Amino acid sequence: MEKYIHPEALLGNEVTIGRYTVIEKGAVIGDGCKIGHHVIIHRDSKIGENVRIDDNAVIGKLPMAAKRSKITKAGRTLNPVVIGSDSIIGTGAIVYAGSQIRKGVLIADTASIREDVTIGEYTIIGRNATIENKVTIGERCKIQTNVYICAYSEIGDDCFIAPCAATSNDNYTGRWKERTKYYRGVTVRNGGRIAVNATILPGKVIHSDGMAAAGSVVTKDIPGGVIVCGNPARKLYEVPENQLLKNQEDWLS
Amino acid sequence: MEKYIHPEALLGNEVTIGRYTVIEKGAVIGDGCKIGHHVIIHRDSKIGENVRIDDNAVIGKLPMAAKRSKITKAGRTLNPVVIGSDSIIGTGAIVYAGSQIRKGVLIADTASIREDVTIGEYTIIGRNATIENKVTIGERCKIQTNVYICAYSEIGDDCFIAPCAATSNDNYTGRWKERTKYYRGVTVRNGGRIAVNATILPGKVIHSDGMAAAGSVVTKDIPGGVIVCGNPARKLYEVPENQLLKNQEDWLS
Amino acid sequence: MEKYIHPEALLGNEVTIGRYTVIEKGAVIGDGCKIGHHVIIHRDSKIGENVRIDDNAVIGKLPMAAKRSKITKAGRTLNPVVIGSDSIIGTGAIVYAGSQIRKGVLIADTASIREDVTIGEYTIIGRNATIENKVTIGERCKIQTNVYICAYSEIGDDCFIAPCAATSNDNYTGRWKERTKYYRGVTVRNGGRIAVNATILPGKVIHSDGMAAAGSVVTKDIPGGVIVCGNPARKLYEVPENQLLKNQEDWLS
Repeated sequence: MEKYIHPEALLGNEVTIGRYTVIEKGAVIGDGCKIGHHVIIHRDSKIGENVRIDDNAVIGKLPMAAKRSKITKAGRTLNPVVIGSDSIIGTGAIVYAGSQIRKGVLIADTASIREDVTIGEYTIIGRNATIENKVTIGERCKIQTNVYICAYSEIGDDCFIAPCAATSNDNYTGRWKERTKYYRGVTVRNGGRIAVNATILPGKVIHSDGMAAAGSVVTKDIPGGVIVCGNPARKLYEVPENQLLKNQEDWLS
Repeated sequence: MEKYIHPEALLGNEVTIGRYTVIEKGAVIGDGCKIGHHVIIHRDSKIGENVRIDDNAVIGKLPMAAKRSKITKAGRTLNPVVIGSDSIIGTGAIVYAGSQIRKGVLIADTASIREDVTIGEYTIIGRNATIENKVTIGERCKIQTNVYICAYSEIGDDCFIAPCAATSNDNYTGRWKERTKYYRGVTVRNGGRIAVNATILPGKVIHSDGMAAAGSVVTKDIPGGVIVCGNPARKLYEVPENQLLKNQEDWLS
Repeated sequence: MEKYIHPEALLGNEVTIGRYTVIEKGAVIGDGCKIGHHVIIHRDSKIGENVRIDDNAVIGKLPMAAKRSKITKAGRTLNPVVIGSDSIIGTGAIVYAGSQIRKGVLIADTASIREDVTIGEYTIIGRNATIENKVTIGERCKIQTNVYICAYSEIGDDCFIAPCAATSNDNYTGRWKERTKYYRGVTVRNGGRIAVNATILPGKVIHSDGMAAAGSVVTKDIPGGVIVCGNPARKLYEVPENQLLKNQEDWLS
C-alpha cells in the first residue's frame, strides 16, 4: 500500500496525494489540494482548498512537554490546526495543532509553526523560520529565512523581518523563580522592520515604520519611522519617505 | 506493508509504531515507547523505556566524511547510540551513532546530535539546535532553538544557552596547516549562561554563573558571576543574587 | 511495496536503495550510488556515480512561488538538477531543480540548495546552510552550519564561511517599489573568509584573502588580505602570512 488515508478522513475533489503519505482520522482536505510524498497530516487537521503541501511536511503535530519546560504544558487540549485556502506548506515544514494559518500564506521549507499561533493572510514565513507558541502575526508580512520569533510576540501587518533576526522574551535569561510572570515577547507594529541578523531584547517595541538595522542589538523601544543601528542600537536616521509603509503602492499587488 | 521492523530488532512491551517507520537490524526498543510515522532507527540503536520519538526522526545515523574534512573521519567504528528512558526526540531530529543521550532528555524538532556527544539527564536541546561531534553537555541544561555548539565544547550542569547563540573552535578560521592542533571549543561551567544571538570565540571559558548578554561578541573569558555585553564584550555588572544558580530553589522541580 | 521506482527511471549497477524511497519518472542514478530510506528523487534528476544520498533527502524539488515574492517566479521551466559523482547529500537535505552540484561536493543534513545555483567541486555545504537562488559558489569552499547565503551572491574558490554567518541583498529592506532593480548579493573573492555569526550588508565585496571577524557587521567592502571586526566593522590587522591562501600547502589534500 503506497499511501495511508484513514477511512474517516474527508477528501475534496481533485486532490492529489503522493506516495507514503499518511492522513489520519478526521482530517479534512479541501478541493484541489496537492499533497506531496511522505506528508503526515495528523488527526482532525483542517486544510482549505487549493493548498499545496510539499514532501515530508507534518501538519497537526502535538506539542512535546519536557518536564522542566516553563511554557509548554502537557495534556492540554488544542483545537485542530486550520490552514487557509491557497496556502503553501514547504518541504519538511512542521505546523502544530492549535494554530490558525489564514488564506494565501506561504510557510517555506522546514519552518516551524508552534501551537497557539495565528498567521494572517498572504504572510510569508521563510525557510527554517521558527514561530514559537502564543505568537500572532498579521497580514502581508515577510518573515524570512531562519528568523526566530519567541513566544508571546505580536507582529502587526506589513512587517518585514530579514533573515536570521532573533528575538527574546525573558529578561532573567532562564533564572529566578518568578521570571515566568515577566515573560514578554517583542512587538512589531504595522510596517515595522528588522534587518538581517539583528537581535531584539525582551519586551521591546518596534513602533510603526521603525527599523532595526543589520546586526543591531536593540535594547530600547524603536520610535516610529526611525532606523537604529549598532550594539547597543542607537538612532541612525529617519526612514526615507520612499520606504514608509504609506508609500508602498506596490505592496498589495 | 506499512512499516518495516527487521526480524532481529528487539521490541519491548506496549510499543506503538507509526506508519512507514523503519527499524533496522539489532535495534532495541524499550517498553512503552511511542514511535511516530516515518521514523528511521538504524542498526543496533538502543532506546530505553517510555521514549517518545516523533515523525521523521532519524536515530543512529552514520557520519558522512567529506574528503577534505579535518574533524570527521570515515571508516571509524562508532558505538551504537544509546537513548535513555523517558526521553523525547522531536520531529525530524537526527541523532548520530556514537552518542549517549541520558534519561529524561528532550531533543526538539530538527535538532542534530553528532557522534561522540554525551547529553546529561533532563537537559533540553531546542528546535534545530546543532550539537557538533566531541561535545559534552551536563545535566538540566537548556540549549535553545538554533543554538550552535561547535566540536570540542564542554557545557557543565544547569547551563542556559538562549536561541541563536553561536560558538566557534578555530582561531585560524579554516587556514594554516597546523590549525587542527589548536582547535578548542568553548567551555561553559556550571550555571553559565549565554543570551540570544551572542557569539563566543574559540577556546573562551564562561566561568560558573558567568553570562554573555544578548548579541554580545565574547573575545575573552567571562569571570564567574559577571555579565558581559557589547562587541567586543565588556563587563556590564554582576549577576543579581536572585539569578545565581545557588538561589534557584525551583531549578530541580 | 517497500519502495517506489518509476519504470522510466534509469538505475546504474550496484545501486542500493532504502525503504519507502520514491524515484520519479526520468530520474537517472549512476553506478554505485547508495540511497537511504525515505529519499525522494523528483522527475528527471540526474545523479552521477558513487553518490551517497541519506535518509529523507529531497532531490529536484520545484520552487514554490508566493503571490508576493519578488524573486521566485512560478511556472518557469527549470533544467533538471545535476549532482556530480562522488558527492554526498545529507539527511533531510533539499536540492531544488535547476541547480548544478559538481563532483565531490558534500551537502550536509537539512541544508537547502535553491534553483539556479552552481556549487563547484569539492565544496562543503554545512548542516542546515541555506543557499538561495541565483548563487554561484566556487571550488573547495567550506560553507558551514547554518550559514545564510542570499540570492545573487557570488562566492569564489577556497572561501571559508563559518557557522551562522548571514548575508543580505536588499539595501531597501523590503520596501520601495524600485528596490528589486538594486538587489545585490555579497561577493567573496578567492580565499575570502567570514567568521562565525558575522553579518554582511547588501552588495559588499570581500576581496581576496579578506576576512570578516566573528560577530562583525560588515558595512563596507573588505580590502584584500585585511581582517575587519566590530559593529560597524573596522580594520583590525592584516591577515598573517600563514593564513594567506597562497601558503596553504595542505589545501588541496
